[in-house]
Amino acid sequence: MNDAVTQETLLTPLLTRLQEALGADAVLTGESDTAGYTEDWRGRYRGEALCVVLPSSTEQVSDIVKLCAAAGVSILPQGGNTSLCGGAVPPTHGPAPVILNLARMRHIRQVDAANGSMVVEAGCILNTVQDAAADVGRLYPVSLGAEGSCQIGGTLSTNAGGTSVLRYGNTRENVLGLEVVLADGTIWDGLRALRKDNTGIDLKHLFIGAEGTLGIVTAAALKLHPLPTHHSLAWFAPRDPAAAQQILGMFQNACGSRLSAFEIMNRHQLDLVLANVPNRRNPLTDAHAWHVLVELGDTRDAEGLEAVLTETLGAAIEQGLVEDAVIAANETQRADLWEVRHSVSEANKKAAIGLTTDCAVPVSSVPEFIDASTRAVHAIVPGLDIAIVGHMGDGNVHFIPMFSFDAWAALADSAAMGDAMRAAVNDVAARLSGTFSAEHGVGQTGLPLMQRYKAPAELALMRTVKAALDPNQLFNPGRLVP
Amino acid sequence: MNDAVTQETLLTPLLTRLQEALGADAVLTGESDTAGYTEDWRGRYRGEALCVVLPSSTEQVSDIVKLCAAAGVSILPQGGNTSLCGGAVPPTHGPAPVILNLARMRHIRQVDAANGSMVVEAGCILNTVQDAAADVGRLYPVSLGAEGSCQIGGTLSTNAGGTSVLRYGNTRENVLGLEVVLADGTIWDGLRALRKDNTGIDLKHLFIGAEGTLGIVTAAALKLHPLPTHHSLAWFAPRDPAAAQQILGMFQNACGSRLSAFEIMNRHQLDLVLANVPNRRNPLTDAHAWHVLVELGDTRDAEGLEAVLTETLGAAIEQGLVEDAVIAANETQRADLWEVRHSVSEANKKAAIGLTTDCAVPVSSVPEFIDASTRAVHAIVPGLDIAIVGHMGDGNVHFIPMFSFDAWAALADSAAMGDAMRAAVNDVAARLSGTFSAEHGVGQTGLPLMQRYKAPAELALMRTVKAALDPNQLFNPGRLVP
Repeated sequence: MNDAVTQETLLTPLLTRLQEALGADAVLTGESDTAGYTEDWRGRYRGEALCVVLPSSTEQVSDIVKLCAAAGVSILPQGGNTSLCGGAVPPTHGPAPVILNLARMRHIRQVDAANGSMVVEAGCILNTVQDAAADVGRLYPVSLGAEGSCQIGGTLSTNAGGTSVLRYGNTRENVLGLEVVLADGTIWDGLRALRKDNTGIDLKHLFIGAEGTLGIVTAAALKLHPLPTHHSLAWFAPRDPAAAQQILGMFQNACGSRLSAFEIMNRHQLDLVLANVPNRRNPLTDAHAWHVLVELGDTRDAEGLEAVLTETLGAAIEQGLVEDAVIAANETQRADLWEVRHSVSEANKKAAIGLTTDCAVPVSSVPEFIDASTRAVHAIVPGLDIAIVGHMGDGNVHFIPMFSFDAWAALADSAAMGDAMRAAVNDVAARLSGTFSAEHGVGQTGLPLMQRYKAPAELALMRTVKAALDPNQLFNPGRLVP
Repeated sequence: MNDAVTQETLLTPLLTRLQEALGADAVLTGESDTAGYTEDWRGRYRGEALCVVLPSSTEQVSDIVKLCAAAGVSILPQGGNTSLCGGAVPPTHGPAPVILNLARMRHIRQVDAANGSMVVEAGCILNTVQDAAADVGRLYPVSLGAEGSCQIGGTLSTNAGGTSVLRYGNTRENVLGLEVVLADGTIWDGLRALRKDNTGIDLKHLFIGAEGTLGIVTAAALKLHPLPTHHSLAWFAPRDPAAAQQILGMFQNACGSRLSAFEIMNRHQLDLVLANVPNRRNPLTDAHAWHVLVELGDTRDAEGLEAVLTETLGAAIEQGLVEDAVIAANETQRADLWEVRHSVSEANKKAAIGLTTDCAVPVSSVPEFIDASTRAVHAIVPGLDIAIVGHMGDGNVHFIPMFSFDAWAALADSAAMGDAMRAAVNDVAARLSGTFSAEHGVGQTGLPLMQRYKAPAELALMRTVKAALDPNQLFNPGRLVP
């Protein structure tokens, strides 16, 4: 307690100055007010914060940065606090940072349909941005489970993936420009909404995916796309993952960029959904070892997207690659099939202890990744259930060893088991030139893995960049680069 | 001469060491051997080099970097020497660098059709890469005039644009990973061919478009796309640039990503082509003030791309936006119409002195950019001819004030006139939140413009990155960031 008292005494001037700069209602200090900011939404990570500040403008963010820098107190930038790896909350140990939450910066500054761009502040909810784009007949394509609560700034700082990467790329590919507050409080206005600009180092890419360690993103110019108006979806059972990969290639050749989703899951994953989420049913008549959801989208339907889907699936059936298939006959059926896919997280949480992994490998190596990871996991626990669900078109497979609650509780050292299982899977990905984090980011979970899997030259280069842009470790110290 | 002798005496050990490391045939020193490397292909820029080295492997590049660093001699990395702004040759003044040309590193290390990726060395000619992709039924989409001689490393270091940016993005968007030799000779192997990888700062973007100032790109993992097999093309006369912009929006809405080119030129530009290049003719019956080439591409043709084109153009005609239009009836006609577009450089070079600019503005501001630039140029020389040709879909317009050879020769100070004209146009772009270099890069031409148009905060950030990654100014000193 002495330490805490001392710290509080020393820091009182900073709190006072922050209140003067922002107004008292924008500086939260009491435990009850800050609880929603210091713990992640799944309750797995919790840390202390000196206070939570809620700036309303870029200038206020700059003021906060200068005040904290002067006081030697670090800043943890925070969006909607929806991280899956503890990236949005303070560390359990170490000095308490100021949490800088961008929720009050939620202004849409500009929408330019003709240019296919919009400028939004970092605190805008992803859903709000998608809707504003759709209002002018355009698409902001980034889409993910947390879109109703995650903020644009968070999606930028983690280079969020989601379900439309196959067609539109990650968040990074959908950003034209950024506004960022740097470690000395300077505001960098890089909000150019240009398709082409070759005038020096492309600085925006430093901040995208940097998880708030190099600067605070306060606004972004986003890229909009023509709005697809027609969709067609099928659910089918490929013979095995190798067949699924072959069919993916057939769809790419036949449909080009109409192909907007190619999601795979194994039988155990589907069974968990059917057993644990009400009103879900197997889209096919029989049980099958593997299942794929494939979707096409387009801005027109003169030829019938469904006909293209049928034709391509027909060719795959003819080659003996598909055991059974069904095509959504209408929008309701399409929504129902997506519901099965979207029920995975809910089902797994209810069913058992799932050791989630987030690997990506080259698409051509997905079958080998699944085989080798299965062998590696079963070498530790023979016959263990494994749920497999993934964005196959991106080479991103969530390979999830599953322990029943009883079996998990009975383990002598469950933490060690978790580490061993994840290491077994991540090692396979590394051997196949893959990555341990395809879309979730590093956060707190991935930090030890950076040391294990990244080449020393790459870590050294990241440290050099960090030291150059944030020499006093003001932003998220200790995060991202170990 | 004394200075040169002294320098040569001092540097003899470096030349000897380079010859030992690479073999004598890989170190060029005589003027006749180095001439093709020290002068740009248009003969506008020329500088001295200590020697030209031709490494055959990444390890040799690393050796060269270490030897030059130890000797305190800078390195100018060079690809096919096709820069349009003097970016690939040494400066006229200042210490002579070692030119490190990547031509001998031209191995295609891997082609993975299923993953949609290939790994190539930096010295591969762009055409070779395109062909290797097509051989496995895939597309490497970057395409530009110099593709028969430019090297992949050069296209990466300049983030090359070209004619397919509207559909596939710049070079940057088509790179999955890089191999780079850093300023201390370290080889960073970032050749991951993954669609998703969120494990720290995305370092490859530091080197793409950095014009060789931060490291030497030795190899790249490139992104391949499904190969479009069908195309349809039209040439039409929009009422004016505002109508052209409106029609662009109609095509984007109706055709989505089928739209692969939307190129505009004015009547004067077309007249120059017709007058100066044999066998070119006006695609339309009458003279018109504005001309647009629009092309659709797709992986299938079940509905008839031509029908889509006709339908969309028909709607534009009905709204009074189009004065006349013609659709290519076959591949020969399509090639002929592209020839008219591709003849622009040849025509302009023969016809007059053209003061080329390379601005991009938001697509929605293109009509205003053309109007305001015309007024600004005519305020300097009333009634001056102006050729306008551009990638309208990217907001990238080459606005070219044209002087007859006689008028140019008669000017008291033609250099000052050139500067004034370019400044007039670039100022308009800057006012419209645009850029002075959309696709050509900075090189030597653009260096003074960086100081004029980039915000101090942005230049400072670039200098910070440069100082961190290349603290001793080994790579291309003085380039890119003034």
